[in-house]
Amino acid sequence: MFKANPDYLQLRGSYLFSNIAKKVAAYKEAHPDTPIIRLGIGDVTQPLSKSVIAALQKAVEEQAHAETFRGYTPDLGYDFLREAISRVDFGRRGVSISPDEIFISDGAKSDSGNIQEIFSKDCRVAVCDPVYPVYVDTNVMAGRAGEYDEKTGTWSNIIYMPCLAENDFAPQLPTEIPDIIYLCFPNNPTGATVSKEQLQKWVDFANEHKAVIIYDAAYEAYITEDDIPHSIYECDGAKTCSIEIRSFSKNAGFTGVRLGYTVVPKELKDASGVSMRDLWARRHGTKFNGAPYIQQRAGEAVYSDQGQKEIRELVSYYMENARMIREGLTAAGFTCSGGVNSPYIWLKTPDGMTSWEFFDYLLEKGHVVGTPGSGFGPSGEGYFRLTAFGSHENTKAAIERFKHLN
Amino acid sequence: MFKANPDYLQLRGSYLFSNIAKKVAAYKEAHPDTPIIRLGIGDVTQPLSKSVIAALQKAVEEQAHAETFRGYTPDLGYDFLREAISRVDFGRRGVSISPDEIFISDGAKSDSGNIQEIFSKDCRVAVCDPVYPVYVDTNVMAGRAGEYDEKTGTWSNIIYMPCLAENDFAPQLPTEIPDIIYLCFPNNPTGATVSKEQLQKWVDFANEHKAVIIYDAAYEAYITEDDIPHSIYECDGAKTCSIEIRSFSKNAGFTGVRLGYTVVPKELKDASGVSMRDLWARRHGTKFNGAPYIQQRAGEAVYSDQGQKEIRELVSYYMENARMIREGLTAAGFTCSGGVNSPYIWLKTPDGMTSWEFFDYLLEKGHVVGTPGSGFGPSGEGYFRLTAFGSHENTKAAIERFKHLN
Repeated sequence: MFKANPDYLQLRGSYLFSNIAKKVAAYKEAHPDTPIIRLGIGDVTQPLSKSVIAALQKAVEEQAHAETFRGYTPDLGYDFLREAISRVDFGRRGVSISPDEIFISDGAKSDSGNIQEIFSKDCRVAVCDPVYPVYVDTNVMAGRAGEYDEKTGTWSNIIYMPCLAENDFAPQLPTEIPDIIYLCFPNNPTGATVSKEQLQKWVDFANEHKAVIIYDAAYEAYITEDDIPHSIYECDGAKTCSIEIRSFSKNAGFTGVRLGYTVVPKELKDASGVSMRDLWARRHGTKFNGAPYIQQRAGEAVYSDQGQKEIRELVSYYMENARMIREGLTAAGFTCSGGVNSPYIWLKTPDGMTSWEFFDYLLEKGHVVGTPGSGFGPSGEGYFRLTAFGSHENTKAAIERFKHLN
Repeated sequence: MFKANPDYLQLRGSYLFSNIAKKVAAYKEAHPDTPIIRLGIGDVTQPLSKSVIAALQKAVEEQAHAETFRGYTPDLGYDFLREAISRVDFGRRGVSISPDEIFISDGAKSDSGNIQEIFSKDCRVAVCDPVYPVYVDTNVMAGRAGEYDEKTGTWSNIIYMPCLAENDFAPQLPTEIPDIIYLCFPNNPTGATVSKEQLQKWVDFANEHKAVIIYDAAYEAYITEDDIPHSIYECDGAKTCSIEIRSFSKNAGFTGVRLGYTVVPKELKDASGVSMRDLWARRHGTKFNGAPYIQQRAGEAVYSDQGQKEIRELVSYYMENARMIREGLTAAGFTCSGGVNSPYIWLKTPDGMTSWEFFDYLLEKGHVVGTPGSGFGPSGEGYFRLTAFGSHENTKAAIERFKHLN
């Protein structure tokens, strides 16, 4: 008699963004003529750049002819892409990451969800609070989270690291010692960052306690200030304690293209000397069949000089939105942070409203969709995430609506 | 202190096809001027069809303009593709599968590896022997396989269903009762099929014992004979006991494009009434971010009238290879089966050679690469898999080499 996975049955409600989609759909049905502006989900709106389109077109054409047709891709990714990543994303920042430590995937969400699988079920997990829900949910699905406490909205076996206003929304080193630490900088959802010196403390902490850091650097292209590390491997000793996850979604607009990668250094070994790189390679080879060839060519195009110029332009476009939101909302009397090294603005809800109360209020009065902070964890209550991924026009219009909410 | 997943450490050796790749690479290095013909891995060689290329080009062009740009895809797949699948793959065979029971993915390998995750760890698994290694390996990684016995090459907690010559390489109903039954027809690696009447017995057996069948129908397009079911849902009662996995790799040549889908009917519930469809939807929404937009448009093109005509031509091309191999090898004195409703030919190794002995012999003497049957399980020992996915020219040349092996 087959049985469902009992750990799956522990999951709470459904995924945050599905809930938002349902609420928005219901509102649209009731108000079909009201134009809604979406600054909720972190999806990009600008088209793919010229270099990327040209690479896609060329790769599609290759697939039309037997002489240039490519079938199964290498499990771990094509060398042309892994070498470009090694050279540009790491080499240019003075970091040495070998192509065979780089694993190409269909996106950072898959990787950040699947990476926990190579670790033992009894590993204790620490997450920022608020946090990208995938880190927590996938550990619940793996049976690592313990019991859910409805009152506090927390799991008994997860260590929460609150990211509060008094620490500029950056987490503090936990007092309980975790085995796996999820960090994301620039942070989703708060938009906070840490300096290289601060990140070094996390690396030292992890090495001291033989913990592993899962470092989600999906938003590194949005860093504008100096002394903010783009990769955790800029810190000394990070290779013995860190896995880094990267995305093409936010720098190159690949949310619908689907491409990402994960770095697992050869030096990363558990206490018994097991190579985590080899385990991840085994997972890739067994449960994945490589990212598509044409997508990998599109990824390669991002690393050409012209491609790099184009993604800087794309990021600047969105960062201008971030500036407009941050300054516009501040001028309108709201309290907000983020948006300087990040496409996310973290807004304190006005008048003591809960996050979902403000969601409903903003949808009803301003017809603007954002993301309730409490959806990211208990310390997100009373906050609200806005994204800079809209068009300039919509972003401006949304700010005007914020100004005239009452 | 972080620890590696101990279940991963139980895995034996490395993946079959990686081993073959290593042996071939070593041979090529030693004999750089010897042209090798590959009939080993089941990768296609013919280019994508015109309709598919046109759809890819159009979708790429859409991604170049803000008005038509598409970002994140729906977790479960675009309606346009799910509706086409529902209408053509099922509706035309008189089977009613709703679009919301169809989950678009990046390929059948991912799905067949991940599907076990929605079931309890204590479910007992049954597999054909020989079998596609992914079914077994992913259950080892999940801790369901028990202990490995080096002598027999089997796992203590897995039920093996031998597929032997006396039963035309089809499995018999197991005497031990499993919770999860993996079936693949047309079979990889033996090329065997079952009639609708025979498959109905499996469905009845599963319903009787409340087991679930994971039905891998990746090769259904290769069925040429009547009375061979293309979908398990052609059998009465299959919706309460079956999940079906489909691929675009072998019918439309998408091995490098990456697209597949899985059907989980709403009627499929465990003993406590848990909807397995809802669990799979939750997994998709949490650990996956949708198949790429342009790939889904390519998939849609396969279902147009012209697209259907083109895939029939592609399949015919490979099936002509299958006929040549089957007839050529039989004429040359070999014993083989398969290749009638399947792109695989299952060859009995000559002179009592083991599968790997024959692999080495064939590579050394004929410079042809095939797949050792023992790599698929203990009952594959003494057999060898050849694929029909080469070009006509290479296939003819390989047959000639077989004829002059001595």
